[in-house]
Amino acid sequence: MKFNKILSNLKNYETGKPIELVVCEFGTNPEDVVKLASNENPFGVSKMVEQGMQEVFKNAYLYPDDSYYELKDVLANKHNVQSSNIIIGAGSDQIIEFCVHTKANKKSAVLMAGATFAMYEIYAKQVGAEIIRTKSKTHNLKELKELYKANKDKISIIFLCLPNNPLGECADAKDVYKFINKIKKNVLVVVDCAYMEFASFKDKDKLIQAKYLIENFENAIFLGTFSKAYGLGGMRIGYGIANKFIISELNKLRPPFNITTLSLRAAILALQDQNFVDECVKSNFLEMKRYETVADSLNIEYIPSYANFITLKFKEQNSTDICQNLLKKGIILRDLQSYGLNAIRITIGTSEQNTKVLEHLREILK
Amino acid sequence: MKFNKILSNLKNYETGKPIELVVCEFGTNPEDVVKLASNENPFGVSKMVEQGMQEVFKNAYLYPDDSYYELKDVLANKHNVQSSNIIIGAGSDQIIEFCVHTKANKKSAVLMAGATFAMYEIYAKQVGAEIIRTKSKTHNLKELKELYKANKDKISIIFLCLPNNPLGECADAKDVYKFINKIKKNVLVVVDCAYMEFASFKDKDKLIQAKYLIENFENAIFLGTFSKAYGLGGMRIGYGIANKFIISELNKLRPPFNITTLSLRAAILALQDQNFVDECVKSNFLEMKRYETVADSLNIEYIPSYANFITLKFKEQNSTDICQNLLKKGIILRDLQSYGLNAIRITIGTSEQNTKVLEHLREILK
Repeated sequence: MKFNKILSNLKNYETGKPIELVVCEFGTNPEDVVKLASNENPFGVSKMVEQGMQEVFKNAYLYPDDSYYELKDVLANKHNVQSSNIIIGAGSDQIIEFCVHTKANKKSAVLMAGATFAMYEIYAKQVGAEIIRTKSKTHNLKELKELYKANKDKISIIFLCLPNNPLGECADAKDVYKFINKIKKNVLVVVDCAYMEFASFKDKDKLIQAKYLIENFENAIFLGTFSKAYGLGGMRIGYGIANKFIISELNKLRPPFNITTLSLRAAILALQDQNFVDECVKSNFLEMKRYETVADSLNIEYIPSYANFITLKFKEQNSTDICQNLLKKGIILRDLQSYGLNAIRITIGTSEQNTKVLEHLREILK
Repeated sequence: MKFNKILSNLKNYETGKPIELVVCEFGTNPEDVVKLASNENPFGVSKMVEQGMQEVFKNAYLYPDDSYYELKDVLANKHNVQSSNIIIGAGSDQIIEFCVHTKANKKSAVLMAGATFAMYEIYAKQVGAEIIRTKSKTHNLKELKELYKANKDKISIIFLCLPNNPLGECADAKDVYKFINKIKKNVLVVVDCAYMEFASFKDKDKLIQAKYLIENFENAIFLGTFSKAYGLGGMRIGYGIANKFIISELNKLRPPFNITTLSLRAAILALQDQNFVDECVKSNFLEMKRYETVADSLNIEYIPSYANFITLKFKEQNSTDICQNLLKKGIILRDLQSYGLNAIRITIGTSEQNTKVLEHLREILK
């Protein structure tokens, strides 16, 4: 059977190894496994959300209210926009998919940083769009602007990941706004703020405000997620905020019931426990400091991070070997060789998890 | 901003009105609302699943194991196939999406019954494929074969919905196999068995066996779901079973983590409680009999149904008016005018729900 030609160019996203498979493969006790490979929230789910959900599972047989009006109302209130400015996705991934499938095609190109969230490229390849990346691995707005100018006629989407996954750097909001200001209105600028709760806590200058963004740039979309600071990675809920026209076009590709009944409820509950988010974000940077200190003492380069992970860059040692060694000890980290980097991305865990990772890292790298 | 041209032809799926909106609109007490519009399982979630899930919510912060190997193992065992024959989707809807996006395009056509599951057309329009339908609203295999022959060069996918949603009729398995046998191997035949648990209970001759299907037809895919008999509509879990080559091509479009961590666990638990499914299916046909009796007594035509709903066809009365009248009384049913039918589809509810619906129907239609 012949399938559409485009399939031959596609590759899947490389996910973090799940705990279950490490248990299988290495016979590790599940309780001893430390998974810091997927930037999940190490503090788990807010207790308030967990308790609120106990009564909700009995509704799992019912499709969700596909208008998602209650969640949109709460999000609209939080971001000071209208409900009609919001689209809900199965993770912000799905909003990226909608952006690419509505706007890009095989005659167009998408522009992004040298090393950034893998799904931008994966979705772009699905529609046959050309991928243009900066030589710089991190976001270099000057280089992005030059590439934009050189390819003005074909670029349909620009992706900005703020802060950037998997590297952790983050451009200042004012520079981002200046950059978007130079982009013509027919180019969709996707401002992926999956980790913005972390960046804006560390440095207020990084804060991208959805309201400001969409009021000033009719061609920009802000992406947010419940997968990181809100501790609901496994529930698959994200959202996009943009002007009503963009939202209504993206909605044409949204399948019915694209988030689960439980996800909908969990997201609404999670927005009521801002205290949990604040505590998680605060702990993140206290614990990150420990990695920086150890990296300095071992003379390992790292990129100052505005997200919930830190990326260590190696010179002599091979990152794949290090990851493989750690895996045997039940520690799952993310090797970045597939991003063209001899580096490892470590999600900042709980204090206990970090102690364990740092002990093993010291042992391996001494 | 200009979006891809194809978007101007797209329309969204019309979902059943959610209970929340009826409460809002008509001030109905939520407990008095009877929603029999979306073919959910009126018995809710299996108690075994509900209890099993109480401890699981604490894992909602973790992405699921994206290999879904545990769920695939259980499904492979149930259907007597290999894990590599299985793909997991966010509802079987998503598998339909993968089929269309991998196989159809704007140069090809898709063939289906006159009135069948709306998502076939919605996804086909996303890729610009031509839609070819039989004049018969229900599945007429002879007419499907004629249309196939007349459009052999462009048909890339044939959809068979067995039993058919929203009409409820079901072709015999032996006739389906004969039909597929005449189709060339480069055409993907999607055998959508979302309601097969019901059909095969009512009449063994309707039973499509995934194993038989894929062993005999390299170009067929079997679709199953947890949304109907398994009582997990709100959790969005479905699956496709086909030969390994088809599965690996479809997987190229599967986004990572396309079902939630809780959905994965719920599906595995649900497969352990076959007794719940059997009881639900048995009750379904006992209760359906009550609708048939009332329809006969009121001289309303209905289509003998092999699914968990019954479709009443009206002559003089207008189905939209009837639905609107019932809505005011807190009863949500599915008007089929958008399918070109002056008919109403009623999900078979619990005995109590059906009593209420039948009372109101009798009153309105007397």
